[in-house]
Amino acid sequence: MELGTVSVTPWEAEAFVDYDRLIKVFGAKPLTDNEINMLKNVTEELHIMISRRVFYSHRDFDKFLEAYKSSRRCALYTGRGPSGNTHLGHMLPWIFTKWLQDKLGLDLFFQMTDDEKFWHTEEREFEYFNSLAYENILDLAALGLDHRKTHVIIDSEDIGYLYPIVIKIAKKITFSVQRATFGFTDSTNVGMIFYPTLQMAVAFLPSELFREPIEVLIPAGIDQDPYWRIARDIATSLGYPKPSQIHNKLLPGLGIGGKMSSSKPETAIYTTDPPELAYGKVVKAYTGGRATAEEQRKFGGNPDVCPVYKMYEMMFEENDMKLYERYYSCRGGSLLCGECKTELAERVARFLKEHQSRRIRAVSHTEKYLIRNKFDPPIIKRT
Amino acid sequence: MELGTVSVTPWEAEAFVDYDRLIKVFGAKPLTDNEINMLKNVTEELHIMISRRVFYSHRDFDKFLEAYKSSRRCALYTGRGPSGNTHLGHMLPWIFTKWLQDKLGLDLFFQMTDDEKFWHTEEREFEYFNSLAYENILDLAALGLDHRKTHVIIDSEDIGYLYPIVIKIAKKITFSVQRATFGFTDSTNVGMIFYPTLQMAVAFLPSELFREPIEVLIPAGIDQDPYWRIARDIATSLGYPKPSQIHNKLLPGLGIGGKMSSSKPETAIYTTDPPELAYGKVVKAYTGGRATAEEQRKFGGNPDVCPVYKMYEMMFEENDMKLYERYYSCRGGSLLCGECKTELAERVARFLKEHQSRRIRAVSHTEKYLIRNKFDPPIIKRT
Repeated sequence: MELGTVSVTPWEAEAFVDYDRLIKVFGAKPLTDNEINMLKNVTEELHIMISRRVFYSHRDFDKFLEAYKSSRRCALYTGRGPSGNTHLGHMLPWIFTKWLQDKLGLDLFFQMTDDEKFWHTEEREFEYFNSLAYENILDLAALGLDHRKTHVIIDSEDIGYLYPIVIKIAKKITFSVQRATFGFTDSTNVGMIFYPTLQMAVAFLPSELFREPIEVLIPAGIDQDPYWRIARDIATSLGYPKPSQIHNKLLPGLGIGGKMSSSKPETAIYTTDPPELAYGKVVKAYTGGRATAEEQRKFGGNPDVCPVYKMYEMMFEENDMKLYERYYSCRGGSLLCGECKTELAERVARFLKEHQSRRIRAVSHTEKYLIRNKFDPPIIKRT
Repeated sequence: MELGTVSVTPWEAEAFVDYDRLIKVFGAKPLTDNEINMLKNVTEELHIMISRRVFYSHRDFDKFLEAYKSSRRCALYTGRGPSGNTHLGHMLPWIFTKWLQDKLGLDLFFQMTDDEKFWHTEEREFEYFNSLAYENILDLAALGLDHRKTHVIIDSEDIGYLYPIVIKIAKKITFSVQRATFGFTDSTNVGMIFYPTLQMAVAFLPSELFREPIEVLIPAGIDQDPYWRIARDIATSLGYPKPSQIHNKLLPGLGIGGKMSSSKPETAIYTTDPPELAYGKVVKAYTGGRATAEEQRKFGGNPDVCPVYKMYEMMFEENDMKLYERYYSCRGGSLLCGECKTELAERVARFLKEHQSRRIRAVSHTEKYLIRNKFDPPIIKRT
């Protein structure tokens, strides 16, 4: 989908986009005080990613919360295209999802789309992406996601869970719809054309596994919305509740503009980066500061376009008062970029050190997250 | 694929087509004495479907036989789209395949494409086709196919066996190729676009299961050739041997022209037809005879356009001498249609009676044919 010069499809998304315009183009709704109060009513406190509108847009989040409050059975769904090591931009929605899971006590279905990443990427063997899926599970475990309630579907190996649902979805969608929604052309490979049915299927999987209609909430980047827009269109005719969504903004990379992306590794913080390497990346980050310390003191910096400030805002400063102090100290010129970056670099390095030690401890129990070790695939009821 | 006014795609095929022209259009080779002698060299005797050229065209059947003789590991592959009960037209290639399996001692992989039939058919629920797949296994069992060497793949439930292969196939094929080969359009559903990768994948499955390159021979109607033409194009780049094929002509229905088809049930003999019903269908069959017995005696009939004669030739008269006698008695006017049909009706009824009693006995052990009860799915070797 083209938004002026900014491109947003599931395969291409910028970070500093006009999110208000994006909501309109996609036809989603902005997250308002109404939904936020409904959530707080249930969770008692609010995650910073909600209060700061990192999650900023939704489809039927209010209906999902109503269903939850009226004790209808609910579940969460998110996922990952394992194209490389995990970076903080990937972790952002997972951190929120974990919070939501803890607060609401819900099962989370987590899809690893190793097939899609292979279909979309030149030059790599399929086995590379499959291996990455397992590597990426370590980050879920290190985040502390509860393996008793977190069920990982690796497309290539767990296709049996999705295929009975995919069969019904695939009949409802023509090539024209795929073309219009995803920009496919005649030279698109069959894998890419097929893939969206798999990402839709997970939204309906909980209803099959628990054999009752399950209300599913999907926390994910808004770039993924097109899949579930179609899923919502066909849900009722397939006998499933429409999945609801809550969309996050994308974490910027440490360079000028653009989301944190594996295509610019020097501006991305990977969970596998040695802490001192990550420290260095942060210290070298682009900022919203002035050319010299003198100018900065005189005119102040601009946190609104600063990826370092965004890192604090979106992930690394829990305390609202301290965040506002940082914002206005920057604006006012009393906080210089060097100091601000050093402090972030220390927090990032500390986070990585702890994450990596949890990651190592997770190696022995990734199997516990696999859906195949916990559920039987949906059964086809023969007539 | 259009051949003048005659249409041959996997979803639409006539019976009395110009098979010589079909071979040329598809780019296959006619079965010659060379391949037939090579086969006889191995099997010692010939099945009537070979000597009478019911199987009449091939791709690399000679290379397959050479590989077999030089003790390279081989397997057979055929299948069925479970769209209704089995009729004799479906059984024809299976009868030959069983003979070949017995003579060569090979594993047979048999694909039940319940997903494809659902994607291709309006108005029916998916579960209907899935149930038919199991129903159809009874016919394989009743034919006497050895369950220790016959492995049935039901697409919807055994997708895990195919998907690791499908992932690699799907990346190699674009929508243009599918459009050109199968006549897909923008309004084709995603299931149909995806499906060919599944039918191709079974040709490579034996190599995955036995973890060595397996030479695969596919006995099937020539209308199915387009799938494996693509499979042959991409086999080498995926590291598999090219599958070879041997193509049969289609059994005519009992009406005027056209193959035996579920869309004209009164001209098709189903394996589930009560023998007396089938008897009646044969007695009412269209023939190549004259309008009156008198004319027939005077001018003789025309067995070349007669579905009753074709039934003798293709399935119900094992003895060559007796077949030729029948042919010339018809031509000469001494054999009248009534007598000829009554005799066929008796043979058909007898066949059904025996087949149905074997079919009932098979009910308790269809599970033994399922691939899932015998093999583990291919394992993805992580990097």
